[in-house]
Amino acid sequence: MPRLGVAYYPEQWPRDRWAVDATLMAEAGLSVVRMAEFSWSRLEPSPGELDFGWLDEAIELMAKNGLDVILGTPTAAPPAWLIEQHPEILPMRADGRVHPFGNRRHYCPNNPDYQQATREIVAALGQRYRSDERVIGWQIDNELGGRCFCEVCRAAFQEWLNDRYGSLQALNESWGTAFWSQTYSSWSQIPLPEGGPVPLPDGFLRASPNPSLALDFRRFVSDSYLRYLQLQLDALRARVEPCQPITTNLMGFRFPEIDYHALAESLDAVSWDNYPLLGRDGRWSSPALSADAMRGLKDAPVWVLEQQVGPLGWEVVRSPRRGQMRLCTYQAIAHGAELIVYFRWRTARYGTEQNWHGVLASDGWPGRRYRELAELGRELEGLSDALDGSAPTAEVAVLHDYDSRFALQVQPTNPALAYEDTVQRHYEALRRLGLGVDVIAPVHALSPYRLVVAPSLPVLDPALAESLRAYAKAGGCLVLGPRAGVRDRCNVVPERALPAWLDELAGVEVTDFASLLDEREVRFVGVDGLPAGTFRGWVEELQLSGARALALYAEGDFAETTAIASHAVGKGRVVYLGGAAELETLLGIYGVLAPEAGLSLRDLPEGVEAVPLEGPRLFLLNHADEERVVALDGPRRDLVSGTTAAGSVRLAPFAVALLEPVPAAVESG
Amino acid sequence: MPRLGVAYYPEQWPRDRWAVDATLMAEAGLSVVRMAEFSWSRLEPSPGELDFGWLDEAIELMAKNGLDVILGTPTAAPPAWLIEQHPEILPMRADGRVHPFGNRRHYCPNNPDYQQATREIVAALGQRYRSDERVIGWQIDNELGGRCFCEVCRAAFQEWLNDRYGSLQALNESWGTAFWSQTYSSWSQIPLPEGGPVPLPDGFLRASPNPSLALDFRRFVSDSYLRYLQLQLDALRARVEPCQPITTNLMGFRFPEIDYHALAESLDAVSWDNYPLLGRDGRWSSPALSADAMRGLKDAPVWVLEQQVGPLGWEVVRSPRRGQMRLCTYQAIAHGAELIVYFRWRTARYGTEQNWHGVLASDGWPGRRYRELAELGRELEGLSDALDGSAPTAEVAVLHDYDSRFALQVQPTNPALAYEDTVQRHYEALRRLGLGVDVIAPVHALSPYRLVVAPSLPVLDPALAESLRAYAKAGGCLVLGPRAGVRDRCNVVPERALPAWLDELAGVEVTDFASLLDEREVRFVGVDGLPAGTFRGWVEELQLSGARALALYAEGDFAETTAIASHAVGKGRVVYLGGAAELETLLGIYGVLAPEAGLSLRDLPEGVEAVPLEGPRLFLLNHADEERVVALDGPRRDLVSGTTAAGSVRLAPFAVALLEPVPAAVESG
Amino acid sequence: MPRLGVAYYPEQWPRDRWAVDATLMAEAGLSVVRMAEFSWSRLEPSPGELDFGWLDEAIELMAKNGLDVILGTPTAAPPAWLIEQHPEILPMRADGRVHPFGNRRHYCPNNPDYQQATREIVAALGQRYRSDERVIGWQIDNELGGRCFCEVCRAAFQEWLNDRYGSLQALNESWGTAFWSQTYSSWSQIPLPEGGPVPLPDGFLRASPNPSLALDFRRFVSDSYLRYLQLQLDALRARVEPCQPITTNLMGFRFPEIDYHALAESLDAVSWDNYPLLGRDGRWSSPALSADAMRGLKDAPVWVLEQQVGPLGWEVVRSPRRGQMRLCTYQAIAHGAELIVYFRWRTARYGTEQNWHGVLASDGWPGRRYRELAELGRELEGLSDALDGSAPTAEVAVLHDYDSRFALQVQPTNPALAYEDTVQRHYEALRRLGLGVDVIAPVHALSPYRLVVAPSLPVLDPALAESLRAYAKAGGCLVLGPRAGVRDRCNVVPERALPAWLDELAGVEVTDFASLLDEREVRFVGVDGLPAGTFRGWVEELQLSGARALALYAEGDFAETTAIASHAVGKGRVVYLGGAAELETLLGIYGVLAPEAGLSLRDLPEGVEAVPLEGPRLFLLNHADEERVVALDGPRRDLVSGTTAAGSVRLAPFAVALLEPVPAAVESG
Repeated sequence: MPRLGVAYYPEQWPRDRWAVDATLMAEAGLSVVRMAEFSWSRLEPSPGELDFGWLDEAIELMAKNGLDVILGTPTAAPPAWLIEQHPEILPMRADGRVHPFGNRRHYCPNNPDYQQATREIVAALGQRYRSDERVIGWQIDNELGGRCFCEVCRAAFQEWLNDRYGSLQALNESWGTAFWSQTYSSWSQIPLPEGGPVPLPDGFLRASPNPSLALDFRRFVSDSYLRYLQLQLDALRARVEPCQPITTNLMGFRFPEIDYHALAESLDAVSWDNYPLLGRDGRWSSPALSADAMRGLKDAPVWVLEQQVGPLGWEVVRSPRRGQMRLCTYQAIAHGAELIVYFRWRTARYGTEQNWHGVLASDGWPGRRYRELAELGRELEGLSDALDGSAPTAEVAVLHDYDSRFALQVQPTNPALAYEDTVQRHYEALRRLGLGVDVIAPVHALSPYRLVVAPSLPVLDPALAESLRAYAKAGGCLVLGPRAGVRDRCNVVPERALPAWLDELAGVEVTDFASLLDEREVRFVGVDGLPAGTFRGWVEELQLSGARALALYAEGDFAETTAIASHAVGKGRVVYLGGAAELETLLGIYGVLAPEAGLSLRDLPEGVEAVPLEGPRLFLLNHADEERVVALDGPRRDLVSGTTAAGSVRLAPFAVALLEPVPAAVESG
Repeated sequence: MPRLGVAYYPEQWPRDRWAVDATLMAEAGLSVVRMAEFSWSRLEPSPGELDFGWLDEAIELMAKNGLDVILGTPTAAPPAWLIEQHPEILPMRADGRVHPFGNRRHYCPNNPDYQQATREIVAALGQRYRSDERVIGWQIDNELGGRCFCEVCRAAFQEWLNDRYGSLQALNESWGTAFWSQTYSSWSQIPLPEGGPVPLPDGFLRASPNPSLALDFRRFVSDSYLRYLQLQLDALRARVEPCQPITTNLMGFRFPEIDYHALAESLDAVSWDNYPLLGRDGRWSSPALSADAMRGLKDAPVWVLEQQVGPLGWEVVRSPRRGQMRLCTYQAIAHGAELIVYFRWRTARYGTEQNWHGVLASDGWPGRRYRELAELGRELEGLSDALDGSAPTAEVAVLHDYDSRFALQVQPTNPALAYEDTVQRHYEALRRLGLGVDVIAPVHALSPYRLVVAPSLPVLDPALAESLRAYAKAGGCLVLGPRAGVRDRCNVVPERALPAWLDELAGVEVTDFASLLDEREVRFVGVDGLPAGTFRGWVEELQLSGARALALYAEGDFAETTAIASHAVGKGRVVYLGGAAELETLLGIYGVLAPEAGLSLRDLPEGVEAVPLEGPRLFLLNHADEERVVALDGPRRDLVSGTTAAGSVRLAPFAVALLEPVPAAVESG
Repeated sequence: MPRLGVAYYPEQWPRDRWAVDATLMAEAGLSVVRMAEFSWSRLEPSPGELDFGWLDEAIELMAKNGLDVILGTPTAAPPAWLIEQHPEILPMRADGRVHPFGNRRHYCPNNPDYQQATREIVAALGQRYRSDERVIGWQIDNELGGRCFCEVCRAAFQEWLNDRYGSLQALNESWGTAFWSQTYSSWSQIPLPEGGPVPLPDGFLRASPNPSLALDFRRFVSDSYLRYLQLQLDALRARVEPCQPITTNLMGFRFPEIDYHALAESLDAVSWDNYPLLGRDGRWSSPALSADAMRGLKDAPVWVLEQQVGPLGWEVVRSPRRGQMRLCTYQAIAHGAELIVYFRWRTARYGTEQNWHGVLASDGWPGRRYRELAELGRELEGLSDALDGSAPTAEVAVLHDYDSRFALQVQPTNPALAYEDTVQRHYEALRRLGLGVDVIAPVHALSPYRLVVAPSLPVLDPALAESLRAYAKAGGCLVLGPRAGVRDRCNVVPERALPAWLDELAGVEVTDFASLLDEREVRFVGVDGLPAGTFRGWVEELQLSGARALALYAEGDFAETTAIASHAVGKGRVVYLGGAAELETLLGIYGVLAPEAGLSLRDLPEGVEAVPLEGPRLFLLNHADEERVVALDGPRRDLVSGTTAAGSVRLAPFAVALLEPVPAAVESG
């Protein structure tokens, strides 16, 4: 059964309140509490003067009430005295302004003074609680990220490049610095790129960095955080017991700055922060995709170390609807969370996050959210057996690639190709058909899946192409979106036919494309049963070289030529989509391809998410604020309500059902 | 009778033109001229070399033509030589860029060199005209404002905080610096906040200052201008005669940076600049609200030291319609102006304000605007008796609170809660019902009013709550908008039920809220005669604790619970609005509450403003560009047209009527 | 016959590929290749170490294949080692940030070190190829432009002002620095303006420079590039043979920073870069206007040194439609190009312009675009006789004035007055009526034209007014848009009736204006046959003083007064438009005025451009993606298709026809 917990900041409340809070937590059925992140100025009020007494006391109080503790290292917020000592710790933004003290994440991850200060505080904390049984895990820092453009970073970037390329000549050749006379004759000449392809206020002097440099800079920033994380991992692992797993709380699918696949390798467990209503569109597929992407980092259950529990927002606050907190908790569990820590216990009375509402209101009174949480805890206890044996299952994989994301940040090319939206559209279409979906790195083993989708893979190399070929040849169904293989790992256009390294596999060659303004659409008609559909913003002209047409353009410059191609490869097939498909179109495409790959679909009404589990059980989550009726293919018992349904099940607004097949004997009864 | 005048800049025109201008002014019936603001480089062409000759001559010429003079101190535009001597006088913007010479307001109010230079030029000017009978008043500087972020300001802010909190411990506790490890161990560590909650270009490094610090910084900026103003007041008062009242021209209700209530205390008279068409929406309620807010600063007639007279604008010019200049002058008079100085006499031929058109066009020819002004002067002379005995009257007060405005600048929370729009909506609804309205500080005496409205009072304290309680208990009707009392004076959430300190008085407790995206609306139905209406963007769940429901939510998570509550308190009542009400909804609410408070309403067509005066007279102002008919409750004489009307009065587009009751004898005749 | 060529960057490709490329170029019928721009780091890999070997070889290879060479000077991209030596070469943006290395145009044109480095590399290049017969011309730098705000520029601006005004007193008087106390007592006090009238993030501290200073700064920036160009011209002319004409590639009509009329004077030939699909609206009139404006710089055929050949764009890529490349080439030829160099030969595999697609795709394969180009070359060869004798003809001139543009950049006044849009609207209306149009400087000889239109001429002086008067008096028809003469050459409002210096000529005086928000419209009705129409955003009140009304306002404050006036002057007339007319309205106005001026109109369907040539021949270009039918007034032979048409000609989507009259004998046959 998944455990529930809360983020708690004892340093923000009077000491005589702590016992009340611990008791209330215990009474609500919570069993985990996260503490100490952001508490550096309390742990070390002045240089070298360490004070663990308050934390000892808080841990002791929690333990007395049966609560296990996860400790955070406090490095996301260096104290004022440290910044005063070493002002150059403050990071520099892309526009050259220093990010000042008074916020958080006010550090450059490459700054040596900060790295030294980090080593010391983390070592002290690790030493103190190294074998404390009440401490069941560590969270390093908090939501790593933020691009720094300081001189230390510039020098570190030059060194990073030296490591990567070995010589300036190799770098000049790899980047093609002959273009615009950018050849470097010393490492110190290499600049940082500016902050992305945003037009500058005085128009004509555009910031248009070399795309190879810009891609490498993104990798370097990502690596900088990997190294900074490793520094803390080293400091902890040299001290703490292996029974205290170490993680850092990630930020889901949409966070664009760090290669989480690389970062997750060094962690003992993956954890992340889930704010389902912060996303701009509020679609249920957004937290679902994040949950699956985080689970896919290690193919293992994850911890949610911050789960939204109330209204929140920065400038503007958004409120969940009644019942949405419970629904989102179930969604996280359905997608593989084994621990859910709500952010936060009590709403802060002061500080920037006054509008991030906790389980308790700021007045400390246990109100509606507290009561609902306690009720949810009891409900989950009742489902404990079912949930323990029911991890989410998937026969479909969606490939998620950071190099491709970074490259599209440098050259968006067309809004219709936006990485995050593209992946989410494919993901949502697959989920809406009732399929189990994993979201994984391209280097992940593909053989477990009947269907593998690469919605956006502009950056490719021969090795990856070979692994995709092997997958298809062995019987898999591989779906490729447009623009596959348009760049190599240096962000250089391959000197070969597109999709580069995949053209033979896909049985097509891209001979032209149309990038359409204002995301204008182009209709296509299906062949051999594929329904008609539309591409939007981007279409490609495909020349068949082995594949057959699954769809033909119905209009535009490419009218009557292939829009979608299917190529039989070994025991499997490769489908190449010649354009940016809309959600409805993808539903039509996968509605044909998935059954052909041997997958069964479900007929789900809009707003209802289905998550197939081992068991075989099935979560149904109604994200609509209206009742929904879901057709069933046989009698099912709903373990949440305890009722049994035959032809269909009714779901109230924001309701959840956990269905399991009813044995034949029961059915006839 | 209100006096009319113009802003005149003799230093911008050839000396031989001055006499022509003075004669034309006199012939148009003007009696006041404002001069010398922005003239520092003419008064002191080089360091210490003072030249008053030109100003002596200009004053003399004006006096000869019967024009009294108001002198401005020239400190809004320090001369180039002073900036060259002390470049650090230039203020620093929030983004770290220096505001350069070549504009205006290019000074830091805390800069000691500038303060010294200010003392000297103001003392010299005061000394020169200290007992000059032709000078009837002083205007200090011009439109004080502008947030500076320089190092001098940072040090001054730290000192200001030291004065306010006494110790770092007190500050750390008051601000809750335990949050995000922001505890300060020396005053010098305290940063300035950055410029508001605007997202930064490189997203992830957000500027999210501590809201207590951010609120105090706004107070500090406001106080900086109060101190800078005081410095000039001291320099003048040490010299000039008390018969020369001293003011500074304020900027109406919408200017958000300075606590005008505090500032006005030190002035002899309140004056302001009225550009009715500069507001983004051009609603008549905008200048009306400003006029009432300025009058409310001292409960006394005000001077309009700049009144729009023609087309104007910065990047884009906007033109008034024919007749609007006259209408806006009458509006200013109706709301309590005793002096109207038009900006400006003649349109500038050069400089940034070429598009701020004056009474004369830039060619110097007396054209349409001149003729209309002269005609208006004659018209006002005919109304002189009526106007002298007719100050605006009010039985309703709207509370205007700068701490609450500043707090909402730091945390907007929801667009529906925008301070200025919220207050204007309530104000406009009350005025559209024909009510006389004062706009006052919360600490103002409330007993004169039958109805007191606090549309937005997020920042509260027990003392203010007590004064509101006393008002209601004594028989007043108090209306509270949502979010009352959600912060204390340190911008910290009170540790008690909301509306904090007012919950018992309002007889409700706010148990939940919904902050709705895109300002979505929620309907409510009325109880006991209150009409149905809608809230937009923000609704609260109210638990009755003594109050009774005046309205119930008709939809949403709070459906069927109380949307508006009324609580009988002593001889009076308190009404709590659970959401952000639209204008139409407020018309419905006040249409019931005001009569219950003993107030009479008027039935006014859209676009017609009614301002009740002592007398009892009544101004009717038709802001529509179509004819409007206003129903009368008895025969009235229109002092403007000289006609008498019975059942109704017709107003041409942009027309004005000043009605007074017709004595019974006349009526029957 | 116009020659075709390509931009080629041998330094970006392996040396063993060059011969393949040269052969392919020759086979496609190309005869010109542009090389060496942006190649500084290849020409001079380290300080003083010159390497011409690769360029010698490339030129030799081209020559062998019959290709003439145009050489670019490489100064648009100074190499990294030079920036490392002299970092202050990097220009400063308006916001104070240095434009870093890693882009292009990263130099300040006033920097003395850069000027010296420029002299040296240009002299070396000139010396090397001074009498090389294979080199048929020189292109200096690339797309000059970019406003620099560094301290060197500030000092240079102060010196430029000293040259212009002679004394500070003259400058203070000319600029009216009495306004806002901006009088300068030393040259060093004079600041640079900030970047235009854009509101700053912290609102109240506005950047509102003196408009005279702001206009002079724009002139200074323009002059800085003229001087920098001259420096290169001097270096080349001291060396190269006169048979190698020197140019620099300009950027068409929309580029707003340099006075191309002044710049073109020093060039041997005008050349420009034509990207017809980069414009925001994609209207055919945009490249047409640019082509005519560039041709008008010297009244001579121009070179297009970069002509779009495929999809391109910065952040977002836009694709031409099939056939548009051919159509746009014909359009350039029709408007007077004698050389068309496509940008670029092969799509770059690396660097910022990966998305600027060339004749070959990046894989180097000769595909569709290559085949189409070869076909076009053959087609043009067939038209060679006709094209050699057929320059575009014009009986209408549109005046294009940089001072007026710069002044409107400083004070946009109303969006409806936007300079570029206003000129393009008039231009497009005239072209849609089938008229031949020149776009010329106001000082150009006007007598060749039956109709001269000044759509926007806010900056005027008596000399120009006199030349306009002489034109009309001699029998011309002059059309003036609103706002003529509202500023003098110092950006000061003239002290006289508007339109200043033209009021007598136009027979009207502007007595008032209305600047309407949101570009609201005002209808007018015609008089004496002029059709009704609308002005949008801007209308003026006209008092007739000799002219007669051609149209009367139908609504608004000026209803029933003159909206358009016509004044008979000598043998000609002057028409004054009292407002900002929309395209449809201009079609109506010119539909009457042009025939009255003796011009014949054509009836053209939407999307079809007609360009009359000497001959008399006529180009018809169908920019629509649908078939269009154009009525003919007699039988014509289409030299492109070789067919003959009588009453009308059918044009397929994106098709072109080159019509010439059929001799009577042929006609009857």
